[in-house]
Amino acid sequence: MLILNQKEVWSALTLDEALEAMEEAFLIFESGDFHMPDRMHAHHGNNTLLLMPCFTNQFFGTKLVSVNPENQKNNLPSIYGSMILNDGTSGEAVALMNGAALTSFRTGAVGGIGIKYTTPENIDSLGIIGAGVQAYTQALFACGVRPIKKLYVYDMQQTKANEFIAKLQKSLPDVNIKVCSSNRELVGRSQIIITATTSKQAVIPDDAELLKGKHFIGIGSYKPDMHEFPKQLYPLLNKLYVDTPFAKEETGDVATALKESLIDDSQIVPISKLVASRTLTNEDTSLFKSVGMALFDVVIAQKIYARALELNIGSQVNI
Amino acid sequence: MLILNQKEVWSALTLDEALEAMEEAFLIFESGDFHMPDRMHAHHGNNTLLLMPCFTNQFFGTKLVSVNPENQKNNLPSIYGSMILNDGTSGEAVALMNGAALTSFRTGAVGGIGIKYTTPENIDSLGIIGAGVQAYTQALFACGVRPIKKLYVYDMQQTKANEFIAKLQKSLPDVNIKVCSSNRELVGRSQIIITATTSKQAVIPDDAELLKGKHFIGIGSYKPDMHEFPKQLYPLLNKLYVDTPFAKEETGDVATALKESLIDDSQIVPISKLVASRTLTNEDTSLFKSVGMALFDVVIAQKIYARALELNIGSQVNI
Repeated sequence: MLILNQKEVWSALTLDEALEAMEEAFLIFESGDFHMPDRMHAHHGNNTLLLMPCFTNQFFGTKLVSVNPENQKNNLPSIYGSMILNDGTSGEAVALMNGAALTSFRTGAVGGIGIKYTTPENIDSLGIIGAGVQAYTQALFACGVRPIKKLYVYDMQQTKANEFIAKLQKSLPDVNIKVCSSNRELVGRSQIIITATTSKQAVIPDDAELLKGKHFIGIGSYKPDMHEFPKQLYPLLNKLYVDTPFAKEETGDVATALKESLIDDSQIVPISKLVASRTLTNEDTSLFKSVGMALFDVVIAQKIYARALELNIGSQVNI
Repeated sequence: MLILNQKEVWSALTLDEALEAMEEAFLIFESGDFHMPDRMHAHHGNNTLLLMPCFTNQFFGTKLVSVNPENQKNNLPSIYGSMILNDGTSGEAVALMNGAALTSFRTGAVGGIGIKYTTPENIDSLGIIGAGVQAYTQALFACGVRPIKKLYVYDMQQTKANEFIAKLQKSLPDVNIKVCSSNRELVGRSQIIITATTSKQAVIPDDAELLKGKHFIGIGSYKPDMHEFPKQLYPLLNKLYVDTPFAKEETGDVATALKESLIDDSQIVPISKLVASRTLTNEDTSLFKSVGMALFDVVIAQKIYARALELNIGSQVNI
């Protein structure tokens, strides 16, 4: 069995290979040739364990994610994850991977696919709201698919934003990275805006004039009571692209907009349709909303596993 | 994170320590101080993935078991398993263990608890029907709790029985081990009879005279359409002891007997009641039926983990 830690998960694939893996995942999603049971939630006190299995033709995998909010008091991550990948024919477990690394890597790649298919090719300015654990990979993949020269960061905790850009600047030495003092300033300066928070209220000003002509990528909110986008955004949209139709139930950014008739169900389009038809949209204002799904995890895990074997990355253990 | 392979899972605890761990699991079960969500079944083609999480006060764990019946054609085990143990406070994964080894070890210990509480102390003859993967640990634990001198084995495939006793004799050099040519012969010669098959019809003769005065331990059947025990056994029983009340739904050996009124619901007693009250039964004919539960897995996993750290067993990996 191959064990891959955080660094090894990251080093197995190039950004382009990860983007290709996510395009493949969207094509598999479109084909229907997979089996993704409903995820299982187990609650114990304040803590949650999520079990997310998915089967493809060659493999199946299960991501186990624990969410322990009290960890922050002890300066520990509130989320830990493990990904177990199994051979689809025999059922034998072939790899164990750091699940947090896998999640942020594939979420970054999904954000990159969103940018590739829903934003103009020549965009050079990017804003990220929320300087948490997902922001880093979002920035890398965004800069991988668009010629970003100016990158803006806003976080309610300015010190967090400063620490984040210090780290990011090392990975993106040619990009001019700045902290903004407000979300309004960030949206004003950026053509693409990625939101990566778990906020329960909009993190972007509710101002149609400001929002018009911008391209939004929402990767933070993943529960019905979470919202990152303001009401005035929705009437500006022709379509609302989602990574999975489950987004209609899973995130407040889609569920509430539907409930309040800010958008019509017919406007919600899975981005897999764009990937399958190789269609790049050409819209003035756009929103791609990602909530994630286990199919992404298993598809990227099998790519990481195959490349890690080729490149001799990771530790083999006899189990 | 500590990785424990098959051999390491087995070597961390003595048989007595494993029996103590299962007694502790039954005490926890009686106290109600745990959380065991319904297991999740995911099916894909002929294959099944079972996800079995359970929370105790200090830890939580998830056993992932894959059942791929076609593997037998390729001379592979049809069942593979992985056990992930997490720290209950932080949620961090602390150990990965070979799940098949863990399952057979704890199932052997549960069988041993059944023998300890439901059979006379001085019994010296044991029969095992079914020479598969569970039979070996059942034999070891049975010989650990009773002064077994004569051990009989029956399997429909006689060569399988012969191979099994050759292996078992090495572990139990002082026990006289023999293959029987029929299940009737085995039951006639043995005071305790362990059934360890996945048969859909009784593997024991339906003959009250033969069955009277015998002590049965059923560890094989775990689905409603599986039956190992014959109809004439039930009227001989005062109580039917089970490892968990879920046995009433999960195994045909209890579900069908209840449905056909061969036994009354009031006669079904969780063995945790005996363990909690330190009551050894004194019945002429008895049956203990085990179907297993995730609580056993997490309790023995946390004991194995703690001892493995003390004894420096296993491989530490940085994940």
